[in-house]
Amino acid sequence: MIKIAVDAMGGDFAPKEQIEGAMLAVKKINDIEINLYGDKVEIAKYLTNHNRITVIPANYVIPMGETNPIKAIKEHPDSSMALALASLRKGESDAAVCSGATQALIAGAHILVRRMAGFRRTAIAPIIPSFNGKGTILLDCGANLEIRPEHMLQQAFFAVVYAKEVLKRDNPIVGLINIGTEAGKGRELDKQVYDLFTNKKIFTFCGNVETKEILDPPCDILISDGYTADIVMKTMEGTAKGMGKFLKRELSRTFFGKLGALMAQKNLNSFKKAMSAEEIGGAMIFGLYAPVIKAQGASKAYGFSNAIRQAADVVRNEVYPKVAKYVQESGDQFGNEE
Amino acid sequence: MIKIAVDAMGGDFAPKEQIEGAMLAVKKINDIEINLYGDKVEIAKYLTNHNRITVIPANYVIPMGETNPIKAIKEHPDSSMALALASLRKGESDAAVCSGATQALIAGAHILVRRMAGFRRTAIAPIIPSFNGKGTILLDCGANLEIRPEHMLQQAFFAVVYAKEVLKRDNPIVGLINIGTEAGKGRELDKQVYDLFTNKKIFTFCGNVETKEILDPPCDILISDGYTADIVMKTMEGTAKGMGKFLKRELSRTFFGKLGALMAQKNLNSFKKAMSAEEIGGAMIFGLYAPVIKAQGASKAYGFSNAIRQAADVVRNEVYPKVAKYVQESGDQFGNEE
Repeated sequence: MIKIAVDAMGGDFAPKEQIEGAMLAVKKINDIEINLYGDKVEIAKYLTNHNRITVIPANYVIPMGETNPIKAIKEHPDSSMALALASLRKGESDAAVCSGATQALIAGAHILVRRMAGFRRTAIAPIIPSFNGKGTILLDCGANLEIRPEHMLQQAFFAVVYAKEVLKRDNPIVGLINIGTEAGKGRELDKQVYDLFTNKKIFTFCGNVETKEILDPPCDILISDGYTADIVMKTMEGTAKGMGKFLKRELSRTFFGKLGALMAQKNLNSFKKAMSAEEIGGAMIFGLYAPVIKAQGASKAYGFSNAIRQAADVVRNEVYPKVAKYVQESGDQFGNEE
Repeated sequence: MIKIAVDAMGGDFAPKEQIEGAMLAVKKINDIEINLYGDKVEIAKYLTNHNRITVIPANYVIPMGETNPIKAIKEHPDSSMALALASLRKGESDAAVCSGATQALIAGAHILVRRMAGFRRTAIAPIIPSFNGKGTILLDCGANLEIRPEHMLQQAFFAVVYAKEVLKRDNPIVGLINIGTEAGKGRELDKQVYDLFTNKKIFTFCGNVETKEILDPPCDILISDGYTADIVMKTMEGTAKGMGKFLKRELSRTFFGKLGALMAQKNLNSFKKAMSAEEIGGAMIFGLYAPVIKAQGASKAYGFSNAIRQAADVVRNEVYPKVAKYVQESGDQFGNEE
């Protein structure tokens, strides 16, 4: 049985959607057991089926907008998030899923789960929508503003194993986000990464990719430093949100616009769904001791159950042991830094 | 009379749309004269009104996909683009408008127009759509991958004068693109820019702006280095293009989707128009000796005439003399670099 630690309390619609999501996941996936961390009384209100779900009481909830994440994690070891994360090192769970405060989760993962031996910089990797419906792994959307090419090689390798084993891509292709497609484009970091990825040949590298291809890229994985990938992610989010607002405003301006929108409502909803991350799952934190998945703050039961499925897939397909083996074997090339 | 040099031959639909755009501009704007550079025979096919338009023959057209822009400009001083640009230094024109190959235009502007005295780094500044319909100036979408905070201060000041005099914003507000809104966020460059803009107080600075607000920002001007702003611009472009494709695919999937789209066609067209840059005009190259405007490669007559109007507004409102005066007066703060 794969054991998944689930923080029931973090999220815009917690704990209801998280608990329903956990019940849904257990129903759909036969080989999982869930440890559900949270307020006993609150959980009892929504948990209608205890099959393969164990409730573990937690006295505190780290609030969604937490501005001092490190302090919050350190001062609240009894929070649902901290308990769920701490269960990984203790061997009580194989993976953790949480839709709570992002920064607190990242801080907690580093403090309580810690890095995989030899892995230099963790990376946050959401899956963004793609025109082919399969999605693209984008990294690093975390906080590594300064990074070395060798660290990005580790991160890209992690993404390749994940894409192969969990997303079932035959030959995952890595692309480097850049301002032009030709070799030699971009900053010094980009040129070094281009050369390193080309020379190492440990995965298929398609070279530089411009972000005007962001929804239809020639690769499965798009990588850049933590500043750039975060800017790309938020620009996508802002453009999609803004365009949605524009479209709604235009359609509501005339009678025929409203009528047309009403007739096409089903299609407009599919469109919205295709642009949403709920279908694909949460963002993975690559490079930890064990898998931690950040489901969207606005997760509903269905999306949250997908993040649990994703966590189970990562464990079942031995993504972590496979990456750890590579990191061990190639370890010396990263020098003795840190 | 304001004299505008127009490259008739560059653009996806040149010279037809450029010539029609020039005639449209002359019709709408009373105080302009146009020098139209291009193939005499080709121009004669479309130029039906010579009122305030002088044709100046050019023997060569720099192709749209030109891969060696510097060589192209240097080897073809008789090209329509090079002749139009060279007319600025000679005092034959007050501003130049071109929808031809972007990289060649930037190279040509640096070689033939050159920088304003004391201005360290030129910046390319398109106007991107905004929810309020007024548009936001985004810079630098050029090639300054490495830049100093002082250079960005000059660029931001230029954008402020431009926003005030041409776009008629009362008190233009500058925002710094960043991965978080709090002071102290981002890379070393971002922190330095934040401090410099805050301390100098030569324009209103609203601090850091996240790109999830890209279509509805709390400012008139969004600035970053040439790598980042280019990534933001192309991510917007890619997301908008990709979403358009998603929407079209979804709407064409069912009978009601198609019917609804047909009924709302007028609204969908307004939506498309609101997201397009054609309404607002072309991208300015800030910091040259005289104004050069890059109209979109896919410009049609209307959009191209808007870029000509924009050029006339820049000249009429003395944007360049105003910036030059500031740069002269504040010159020594930029040190003796270069």
